[in-house]
Amino acid sequence: MIKVGIVGATGYAGQQLLWLLFNHSKIDVCFLSSYNYANSAYSQVYPQYNTFINKYCIDMQTAEKKLPMIDVLFSALPHGKFFPIIEKALNQGVKVIDLSADFRIKDSNVFKKWYQIEHPKKYLLKNSVYGLPELYKEKIRKAKLVANPGCYPTASILALAPLVNSQLVDLSSIIIDAKSGISGAGRKPKLSNVFSECNESIRAYSVTCHRHTAEIEQEISNLYGDKINLSFIPHLIPMNRGILATCYVTLKKNISEESLYSLYEDFYRDEYFVRITSKLPETKWVKRSNLCDIGIRVDKRTSKVLIISAIDNLIKGAAGQAVQNMNIMFGFEETEGLKLISITP
Amino acid sequence: MIKVGIVGATGYAGQQLLWLLFNHSKIDVCFLSSYNYANSAYSQVYPQYNTFINKYCIDMQTAEKKLPMIDVLFSALPHGKFFPIIEKALNQGVKVIDLSADFRIKDSNVFKKWYQIEHPKKYLLKNSVYGLPELYKEKIRKAKLVANPGCYPTASILALAPLVNSQLVDLSSIIIDAKSGISGAGRKPKLSNVFSECNESIRAYSVTCHRHTAEIEQEISNLYGDKINLSFIPHLIPMNRGILATCYVTLKKNISEESLYSLYEDFYRDEYFVRITSKLPETKWVKRSNLCDIGIRVDKRTSKVLIISAIDNLIKGAAGQAVQNMNIMFGFEETEGLKLISITP
Amino acid sequence: MIKVGIVGATGYAGQQLLWLLFNHSKIDVCFLSSYNYANSAYSQVYPQYNTFINKYCIDMQTAEKKLPMIDVLFSALPHGKFFPIIEKALNQGVKVIDLSADFRIKDSNVFKKWYQIEHPKKYLLKNSVYGLPELYKEKIRKAKLVANPGCYPTASILALAPLVNSQLVDLSSIIIDAKSGISGAGRKPKLSNVFSECNESIRAYSVTCHRHTAEIEQEISNLYGDKINLSFIPHLIPMNRGILATCYVTLKKNISEESLYSLYEDFYRDEYFVRITSKLPETKWVKRSNLCDIGIRVDKRTSKVLIISAIDNLIKGAAGQAVQNMNIMFGFEETEGLKLISITP
Amino acid sequence: MIKVGIVGATGYAGQQLLWLLFNHSKIDVCFLSSYNYANSAYSQVYPQYNTFINKYCIDMQTAEKKLPMIDVLFSALPHGKFFPIIEKALNQGVKVIDLSADFRIKDSNVFKKWYQIEHPKKYLLKNSVYGLPELYKEKIRKAKLVANPGCYPTASILALAPLVNSQLVDLSSIIIDAKSGISGAGRKPKLSNVFSECNESIRAYSVTCHRHTAEIEQEISNLYGDKINLSFIPHLIPMNRGILATCYVTLKKNISEESLYSLYEDFYRDEYFVRITSKLPETKWVKRSNLCDIGIRVDKRTSKVLIISAIDNLIKGAAGQAVQNMNIMFGFEETEGLKLISITP
Repeated sequence: MIKVGIVGATGYAGQQLLWLLFNHSKIDVCFLSSYNYANSAYSQVYPQYNTFINKYCIDMQTAEKKLPMIDVLFSALPHGKFFPIIEKALNQGVKVIDLSADFRIKDSNVFKKWYQIEHPKKYLLKNSVYGLPELYKEKIRKAKLVANPGCYPTASILALAPLVNSQLVDLSSIIIDAKSGISGAGRKPKLSNVFSECNESIRAYSVTCHRHTAEIEQEISNLYGDKINLSFIPHLIPMNRGILATCYVTLKKNISEESLYSLYEDFYRDEYFVRITSKLPETKWVKRSNLCDIGIRVDKRTSKVLIISAIDNLIKGAAGQAVQNMNIMFGFEETEGLKLISITP
Repeated sequence: MIKVGIVGATGYAGQQLLWLLFNHSKIDVCFLSSYNYANSAYSQVYPQYNTFINKYCIDMQTAEKKLPMIDVLFSALPHGKFFPIIEKALNQGVKVIDLSADFRIKDSNVFKKWYQIEHPKKYLLKNSVYGLPELYKEKIRKAKLVANPGCYPTASILALAPLVNSQLVDLSSIIIDAKSGISGAGRKPKLSNVFSECNESIRAYSVTCHRHTAEIEQEISNLYGDKINLSFIPHLIPMNRGILATCYVTLKKNISEESLYSLYEDFYRDEYFVRITSKLPETKWVKRSNLCDIGIRVDKRTSKVLIISAIDNLIKGAAGQAVQNMNIMFGFEETEGLKLISITP
Repeated sequence: MIKVGIVGATGYAGQQLLWLLFNHSKIDVCFLSSYNYANSAYSQVYPQYNTFINKYCIDMQTAEKKLPMIDVLFSALPHGKFFPIIEKALNQGVKVIDLSADFRIKDSNVFKKWYQIEHPKKYLLKNSVYGLPELYKEKIRKAKLVANPGCYPTASILALAPLVNSQLVDLSSIIIDAKSGISGAGRKPKLSNVFSECNESIRAYSVTCHRHTAEIEQEISNLYGDKINLSFIPHLIPMNRGILATCYVTLKKNISEESLYSLYEDFYRDEYFVRITSKLPETKWVKRSNLCDIGIRVDKRTSKVLIISAIDNLIKGAAGQAVQNMNIMFGFEETEGLKLISITP
Repeated sequence: MIKVGIVGATGYAGQQLLWLLFNHSKIDVCFLSSYNYANSAYSQVYPQYNTFINKYCIDMQTAEKKLPMIDVLFSALPHGKFFPIIEKALNQGVKVIDLSADFRIKDSNVFKKWYQIEHPKKYLLKNSVYGLPELYKEKIRKAKLVANPGCYPTASILALAPLVNSQLVDLSSIIIDAKSGISGAGRKPKLSNVFSECNESIRAYSVTCHRHTAEIEQEISNLYGDKINLSFIPHLIPMNRGILATCYVTLKKNISEESLYSLYEDFYRDEYFVRITSKLPETKWVKRSNLCDIGIRVDKRTSKVLIISAIDNLIKGAAGQAVQNMNIMFGFEETEGLKLISITP
């Protein structure tokens, strides 16, 4: 049994994380903190946990005092708010899994460009590990600080990684047209996530300026071994959860769908949570699971290859991947506590 | 052409009202005011009206200055905020149609009990008319101040009126189980109308204490000629608009469904906007229309009669009824500008 | 490990059942049969189970041949189709849990009245047990044939049972206004469950004639010790899953909300899956769980008590309750394999 | 007043068409025919029209007999079913507006390739006019047979036309990622449009093989003056209506967003139904209207231009455009009967 603390436990990602940890056989949750709900019973915030989770939310200051009690700290706070406590935690030998964007971008200039702030803890960047287990399992195993990937980057990078490794495609041509459920916009009330404003409509947002672009480009460039720019356009659609990423890449020469399928199956052969599917993915097939489904089509008429990936934005895109990272960091079974899957409808 | 002003034009009811008036052949909209969007172009607030509505929102003070320009003032403001300007308008001979609850309750003690404030303009109550045209057409014709009914009361009272008039039922047994779309909760962002909190769930709210109860009881008691208490339980369901009211009343003696249908058809014979339907109503059949559909079933096994009514909460339940009242007050065709109907899906 | 077979495994209830059994530590699923998908891989029918469930669907005839292999047979077939195989199973000492309505109604005349067919296996009725564990746990423990309750009856009976036992209310006054998600209408395509026909609308259906009425009345009458008729009105609302039952009963004398809460807490003290909640239930709080939440309000003004219950129609209303019954029949922990709960949104 | 007939009046497009014509000041609807609902009252099929539309559906044979009565025939039938009657109509001097795909593809070999049938009336193709008024108004004015465009092609072609005309972009790079509401899948019940199968999920379909690709390529090629292949990928999202087309094109040289906006504003200067919007379009802004909103963004980092268009798939994408074509063919005001617009929510 290891002891964990959660800061930012009352947002949607935090809620999913708490529930996954609560059902994890090797975990003892020592504390959960919340800005908005400090001193409230967790089951007052989320009544579905009534009789299951009897803990209270504590405030940030109290959380800091409890750092010595824990082995690992999870943060599901918004980016830019977590720097002080993370440093304290690491100094006390507590491992950290940060679900925010604060430590995902290795180049502090790129970080500044996209997040409009000077990174206050540059010295921590070089030792932080980008927590996408399908790419960095060995580094994660040894990591003290894991930057849990964003939801869009998880779907996009997993969809593109095998293709980027191969030298078969024109990487300047990458377009990612992503569609997300509304939970991705968070739980904080704002006009843009009011039911009657979102329901029965679809829109693109943060076009050409979404911060996840930097994260996707960093990882695609690393895989390719050279700097790549790509187009990433997110859309919000009227459903609670799920991301579908439709990725377009131009072929440099003819490749058969079959050989691309082999390429992907080989690349993810040992990965429990990635499924290469003959049918093209639908988000409902991965809902409430830590899975990423990937399907491939070649359009001979236009020499383009189309890769479609689907994840649950709150599980593989956030809380589930955080638990997967923790499992690796502490030598547990990678799938421990993550075998749930959607029971649609 | 008559000249109208609207205060509170940027909420959902105000938006519907403006659009209806904008398409009304006899109306010139002189001004629209908004608390939150003063000095914004209306098409910035609601981009669907881009190229159609080029007006700007003005503030309350400016609106007051413009009162002399108009023949009728509509308020779609929350209750309790409209008293000062309404008095000014009436004093200047401007007719008023108030979509709030401020002048619906005739008994200021009842008003105080349900709204927790002393009514500041009691002297106006005795001359205000409850704007349900199917019951008060003649009074509305002569009214200077019309209190436009609430959405739930409109559906409930129209469903029950013919039965209450007849002496066939036990009126102490009335139960109204109502279901509303989320737009009824307004446009102001709050946790309870965030998409992911409302979607894929249903809940009852304001149980035994919803303020519309007072309004329904007042009108049902008037119809009956004696004071009646009833049970009104509203529910929120995951759709944008529409109210379904399922009403239960115990029969005092056997009545056939056929005779009840005749009773209802006679009662509403001259009412364009009420349809007595053999199939039980569905909200999609009245969506975006000023119609109220009513269906009736007798459950012989339990000696209960069931009346189900359906309206669009924002049209017959708010903006459409306000326009219907205006048409009557100014001697226009009652249906003027209100013949649109849902084009489902 | 016990061995189970499922007939009707590709409907929504069957799918949920298979998934629950698949994750149950004490179960080995020997076969699944399907009318529409015989000889198809189950993961072709439900691709979300790809790489998890590798079984094929077999046909009814093959299923019959495999009866000797199993300890318990589950049926998630429509009512009226299962009589032949159930008899064969019982004759071979295989226990049966029937999710259809075929053995719920003890009185074959009542069955005939509501289902318009002569019950072909009357002799089995007297030994069948109505599988509502919160009422019949001991009988279920010894049962060979369990009739798994309907979704609406589960929510309704659990909501009313404690009150019916007490002599505090007028039982002739019971009204159940129930709201269900669309999955309750099944997976078979028909106009009434087409997306654009259901979405953004609400309707009542089978008014005064829904077959679950018979089932609810049977159990309420048993609890009361005398024959009771009640009103049950179901509605379909645009969400995938969940039932909210709003129940109205008239008080015979004054009772406080507090004493009613004590009454309910005592009645369900030992029941893991029933939660008496101070906040009124919302379906999202029980979604994907085997829980039934119940909240109570007294309306002093009308001397009515209001009980609201919420379940997941496919879990506590079908598959989850079937597993709960199996756990009891075979001496497993009652909660085995049923501790999952909704992770909203 | 001109006299019209409709065949295929009970599908979603037919329903919208009938309602628009019913509210059109210059139209007398002589007959409506339906395969599935012949001899049914229209208000039985769509109860929302109860008391408004009192007509009955007739069968195809009767419709043919009534051709001499009418000036124009609308077909909202599936493709491939309408050839016989259209020939009869034209021979009798009746103008035809066909909402199916039968006469959209000018090259019968291309038609055969995508629709897998030999075109049975090739001789009619050369005189048929592709009914996109913003491109072919003059031809439509004189047309006897108008092929009403598909929903996706309408959104896609209007989004791309100005850019294709300019020589500024690499047309081999066109990608159209389109998202449609479920009504696009029609009213006929099938597993793929069952509520619980569509709701809370998103999927791509007909990837690399959707028939609308041929139609889009034909028109884009015509505009460009040379044969172009492009990628068109449609997705289904859980809402009733609306299409958002996200179009990606690579710039051949630097162009500012401003100059592209001017290009588009000039191109559509005289078009009432096309709005060039500074904010990127959302489908709710055009819902239930005949509008097409278009927004533009340049991504300097990737030298790509992004054009997003939004329409209502059943109005501008079908019925509304058909009425717009009729207005032009008969010399009415182009906007006659088409000025309704969404009144969100």
